[in-house]
Amino acid sequence: MKVLLVNPNSTREMTDAIARTARALAGPGIEVMVVTARGTPPSIEGYADEARAVPAMLDAIVDAEARGAAAHVIACFDDPGLDAARAVANGPVVGLCEAALIAAGRVAKRFSVVTTLPRAVPIIEDLAGRYGCGRSLRRVHAADIPVLDLETDPTRVLPLIARKIRQAVEEDGAEAVVLGCAGMSAHLERLSRDAGVPVIDGVGFAIRMAAGLAGTGLMTSKTGAYALPRLKQPVSARTAPATLT
Amino acid sequence: MKVLLVNPNSTREMTDAIARTARALAGPGIEVMVVTARGTPPSIEGYADEARAVPAMLDAIVDAEARGAAAHVIACFDDPGLDAARAVANGPVVGLCEAALIAAGRVAKRFSVVTTLPRAVPIIEDLAGRYGCGRSLRRVHAADIPVLDLETDPTRVLPLIARKIRQAVEEDGAEAVVLGCAGMSAHLERLSRDAGVPVIDGVGFAIRMAAGLAGTGLMTSKTGAYALPRLKQPVSARTAPATLT
Amino acid sequence: MKVLLVNPNSTREMTDAIARTARALAGPGIEVMVVTARGTPPSIEGYADEARAVPAMLDAIVDAEARGAAAHVIACFDDPGLDAARAVANGPVVGLCEAALIAAGRVAKRFSVVTTLPRAVPIIEDLAGRYGCGRSLRRVHAADIPVLDLETDPTRVLPLIARKIRQAVEEDGAEAVVLGCAGMSAHLERLSRDAGVPVIDGVGFAIRMAAGLAGTGLMTSKTGAYALPRLKQPVSARTAPATLT
Amino acid sequence: MKVLLVNPNSTREMTDAIARTARALAGPGIEVMVVTARGTPPSIEGYADEARAVPAMLDAIVDAEARGAAAHVIACFDDPGLDAARAVANGPVVGLCEAALIAAGRVAKRFSVVTTLPRAVPIIEDLAGRYGCGRSLRRVHAADIPVLDLETDPTRVLPLIARKIRQAVEEDGAEAVVLGCAGMSAHLERLSRDAGVPVIDGVGFAIRMAAGLAGTGLMTSKTGAYALPRLKQPVSARTAPATLT
Amino acid sequence: MKVLLVNPNSTREMTDAIARTARALAGPGIEVMVVTARGTPPSIEGYADEARAVPAMLDAIVDAEARGAAAHVIACFDDPGLDAARAVANGPVVGLCEAALIAAGRVAKRFSVVTTLPRAVPIIEDLAGRYGCGRSLRRVHAADIPVLDLETDPTRVLPLIARKIRQAVEEDGAEAVVLGCAGMSAHLERLSRDAGVPVIDGVGFAIRMAAGLAGTGLMTSKTGAYALPRLKQPVSARTAPATLT
Amino acid sequence: MKVLLVNPNSTREMTDAIARTARALAGPGIEVMVVTARGTPPSIEGYADEARAVPAMLDAIVDAEARGAAAHVIACFDDPGLDAARAVANGPVVGLCEAALIAAGRVAKRFSVVTTLPRAVPIIEDLAGRYGCGRSLRRVHAADIPVLDLETDPTRVLPLIARKIRQAVEEDGAEAVVLGCAGMSAHLERLSRDAGVPVIDGVGFAIRMAAGLAGTGLMTSKTGAYALPRLKQPVSARTAPATLT
Repeated sequence: MKVLLVNPNSTREMTDAIARTARALAGPGIEVMVVTARGTPPSIEGYADEARAVPAMLDAIVDAEARGAAAHVIACFDDPGLDAARAVANGPVVGLCEAALIAAGRVAKRFSVVTTLPRAVPIIEDLAGRYGCGRSLRRVHAADIPVLDLETDPTRVLPLIARKIRQAVEEDGAEAVVLGCAGMSAHLERLSRDAGVPVIDGVGFAIRMAAGLAGTGLMTSKTGAYALPRLKQPVSARTAPATLT
Repeated sequence: MKVLLVNPNSTREMTDAIARTARALAGPGIEVMVVTARGTPPSIEGYADEARAVPAMLDAIVDAEARGAAAHVIACFDDPGLDAARAVANGPVVGLCEAALIAAGRVAKRFSVVTTLPRAVPIIEDLAGRYGCGRSLRRVHAADIPVLDLETDPTRVLPLIARKIRQAVEEDGAEAVVLGCAGMSAHLERLSRDAGVPVIDGVGFAIRMAAGLAGTGLMTSKTGAYALPRLKQPVSARTAPATLT
Repeated sequence: MKVLLVNPNSTREMTDAIARTARALAGPGIEVMVVTARGTPPSIEGYADEARAVPAMLDAIVDAEARGAAAHVIACFDDPGLDAARAVANGPVVGLCEAALIAAGRVAKRFSVVTTLPRAVPIIEDLAGRYGCGRSLRRVHAADIPVLDLETDPTRVLPLIARKIRQAVEEDGAEAVVLGCAGMSAHLERLSRDAGVPVIDGVGFAIRMAAGLAGTGLMTSKTGAYALPRLKQPVSARTAPATLT
Repeated sequence: MKVLLVNPNSTREMTDAIARTARALAGPGIEVMVVTARGTPPSIEGYADEARAVPAMLDAIVDAEARGAAAHVIACFDDPGLDAARAVANGPVVGLCEAALIAAGRVAKRFSVVTTLPRAVPIIEDLAGRYGCGRSLRRVHAADIPVLDLETDPTRVLPLIARKIRQAVEEDGAEAVVLGCAGMSAHLERLSRDAGVPVIDGVGFAIRMAAGLAGTGLMTSKTGAYALPRLKQPVSARTAPATLT
Repeated sequence: MKVLLVNPNSTREMTDAIARTARALAGPGIEVMVVTARGTPPSIEGYADEARAVPAMLDAIVDAEARGAAAHVIACFDDPGLDAARAVANGPVVGLCEAALIAAGRVAKRFSVVTTLPRAVPIIEDLAGRYGCGRSLRRVHAADIPVLDLETDPTRVLPLIARKIRQAVEEDGAEAVVLGCAGMSAHLERLSRDAGVPVIDGVGFAIRMAAGLAGTGLMTSKTGAYALPRLKQPVSARTAPATLT
Repeated sequence: MKVLLVNPNSTREMTDAIARTARALAGPGIEVMVVTARGTPPSIEGYADEARAVPAMLDAIVDAEARGAAAHVIACFDDPGLDAARAVANGPVVGLCEAALIAAGRVAKRFSVVTTLPRAVPIIEDLAGRYGCGRSLRRVHAADIPVLDLETDPTRVLPLIARKIRQAVEEDGAEAVVLGCAGMSAHLERLSRDAGVPVIDGVGFAIRMAAGLAGTGLMTSKTGAYALPRLKQPVSARTAPATLT
């Protein structure tokens, strides 16, 4: 089964790093198709970057489905355009934050998230609300690092993330800690080392969930909110003599 | 004071109709600037249309602010890209659904919404959750009509909407009914006629709220979630000899 | 258009200070009518003071409406008697806390409130819950000062408030801070000075909201929860020979 | 132990009826003190009636405590002024709606309420939210009868209430039904007869709860929200030469 | 009236201590029947201990009801098996945590809980969510002591609990503090001494609530979720010639 | 990888039917170990049956882990003992209801559940609350059939279930329908036939989730709520001369 992993930002290096994790953890019988969105911001840092990345990401999903992808994973922790992706896809679509928080809620009763920039904190809190984490999510910490520094300056930023993980365990009573950025995926092993609790990166489990939905026969409902976009004729054309519907 | 009214869909006829309402209700001292987004879907019907409309809408907001707009209103009941708009704007931004639901919650303890297509129902329910309507929102009804039929076939569709308004009052115990589509704005008077409760179109109040925020000195916070997008150099460029930050 | 600003406490000096802000920010075409409630506590500090202030405040609203007020603002951050006011008024009624929190939620994703006495903290938290702030409200801080000291001893109390504002920004990650007492209104400029984020006083925006609702044609629904009080004959009279209904 | 039962409306006949239930169910060792508020509306039908009744009710509570009442029950299903009552009382205070909903949640997983007028529906829904009923409360039904008709015209109104009880069981899946008005208390036996599920009137249990709190040594906390009202000198007096604090 | 107090753990010494509190506070006319569950863990520390204790506790309740118990109290702060107990009992059943949190919410607007082990923190948070405490519950503190040390080493552990009580008052703004373990019951007087706010042990009030429900005629609804367990014939037997229903 | 599928009821025929689905959908590389609990009720119908089934189910999980199970699925839609199972297991544990609702929330924005007996309705509603379904879950329908009739009388009961599925789509606006009982698993194909929306049975996806968690390296956190049960010495033994800890 083919599963698309789409990186909504335009940084190929980041896609490659995420893809390595995805392929290592995808399990038997899964072929991970990888796409980097075109013409989108180099990283997704906040609402505006998200909005600018989504249309190209939707195109990539539609295209991948035409090339045989049975399911799709959005490889950005903000889960940008997740609902829109479901509206254009027939196969199931899973977001990275969604997968990571669902995983965390299965192995721990209370957990925290460590992300990059402070502006991502409310975004992730709201996603957690949407995914129903409720009391499970103790707190979202920001290590205050730009996303791309995970690629270009890991020596500087990994200790900052590790410190926040410790803080989550000691102050929040977190029973597990979720890595809140796709770019942290490549550093899971190192960040897990001294944590004392499970440290969770959602990339592998997102692939498994997407494949698991498709593999057990579940497709995105095309009734209601995720119905395919309607094709519409502009009003000006409609008022012309020959009207189509 | 100039207030931008941006229609995220590309249907100029709809913009014109909304603008008439906006100008009639803007109150003294307000100049309504009107923009129709370019290259976006002819109407916003669901998540995918929203996603495809937002980038052009953000451009329109940035452009209008450069031309003197002090505040902004997104004239679509899905409030597409509202957070992203706040991240790119310095002046306050108000969504149509947001304004209408806030108005409804001030004049009625329990209310319902009547919208166009069934696929909009969960979208509006979720927006109501985000705006904290809680128990106030009784129900979202869909009259099951395409958005653009409000422009091209009002004779057919207005009775369908009126029927849903009556149903909201009789079955839901709604003390007010909100019109859940910008395209209904032009028909407020007719739809209010026999309702027996306040029928609320948010266009006028959205302009008033946006102007009221700016007029009392409130700008969008540029700390945290609505900080301006960061400019970033691609990783490939950063790894080149001359590195910028 | 005439908008009533009613101070439910009996301190005329406080009414005057709030009225100055209200008039400065009301915008064109608005005449602010000002009333101080009679025979009520000198300040509203907690539930009992609220309860003792509301009946006189309702009388003031009914009276002002008879004198031409088209909309009403309750100038106390506890929003005492807001629902009761809506039940006796035909025009829209807006509470100060309500207006301030609605404003804050438009210009910031996360914000905190700074109020006077610790006993007001749960009151404001519950109002925020009612107005649907949910995750948006980070925390309510009390500077631990009696309300009237804002009038009589600003030199002492303003630094205490300023310190709490800084704490909200630094510890809570507040992107804006709301002043949680009508008496702070007069000191907005000074309290905003070094905050680094928007500091929000709701008085001006409350007037704008109330005027905006009335100005766009919205009246309080008289069906359901906000129906006018029923006139009723006592049971003893009803059992007498001549029964009225 | 003396427990005050205060009827916030001014209808003595209603107080008497409630008192009969209260005394019949109070259990050993409890003396029920009964007070009808003075100068308040003949019945409590909505927010405005509530607000007009509360100050006299607070006076009655303070007075009763001085005469030895160890705990207090507010005998109106809107629980008017419950927080204010706790702020003026030292002994525990229990509301009728509060007691009835707490009782219902102990003997049934899902229940409905049947009340008098439609305007009470949102009030009771909001109280249920405050008392944390969440999913437990299926629905609030209004039999559409004025409160005092329970006293003066039971033959007409009891069948209307009984019909709503049946509807709650059949349509809502209610496992118990709560009588949502103190005036229904006297008719509990008749209304329970054919219900097939427990029908709950809160009067007896409210007395038990209030006595149970006081009897196990619990008093209202005087720290924070329920602290006694502060005595304050008006500003004008404070600015006079001799200043008191 | 007989009220069962069942200790779901197998430690007789703990039952005795709780029973002393229960009998001292039960009030006139109540006979407290006491049972220690058989073959269950010596203390209930977490989900697994709960699960292992519940079947024997259900047997004890059924047995006590046959011996005349009119109502039942589960004397463990995790409220293990509360719903199951209601399904097997005809009389009302009250949990200790449930009673304590209901009491706390009547005498304080905001309160905290102090319990034993950190693993109990999420359990109590979730129970508070179930009982609708919402914003009322400020925080659950763990003193990090094994449950049985309350019996065997009070000198060591009571100061640890007292410290957490102080922390709750000073840091959380708690207006009351709830003792979050049945084993703390015997130490209420000492733990209340310097707290400055009400310290609440639920044992006495649980007995009062259970007796109050039964004493005012309320039985557990046998329709719906708390219906008595159905007797069922195994499938293998059903497929045999002689079929029973 | 070995994944345990444990049926907490004692009906072997039902285990066999569920196992067929599980094995058909488990995907490559997964060996499904199947266990029927011993001495538990023949079906799980409500809270009391759940409580009586859990201890034997915990034993089965501990035993299976010793025999090499890397992850565990509880094959009953009430998810009985899910938290307790996590406390005794090292590998991840997934509940059937949990998996089905998580799947439904990925492929549909709004969905309903169809279950067997009315008493299961509140149980499933509460589970949906726990798993954060919020607005996503439209309604839980009961077809009013005993669980074991799915095994012994499918001809009678399947049309009753199919009718409820249609009702969910037509009345609730459900975009997908979840089968709310493990015993319906075997009938998925037939029940999906005319539904027009995805009909979801969680058995296959539960296996995939459990395997996906374990396969990507996630184990149950042994810090906090899911820590292994503590071994404790009874108090009576502890007071004996030779004390252990």
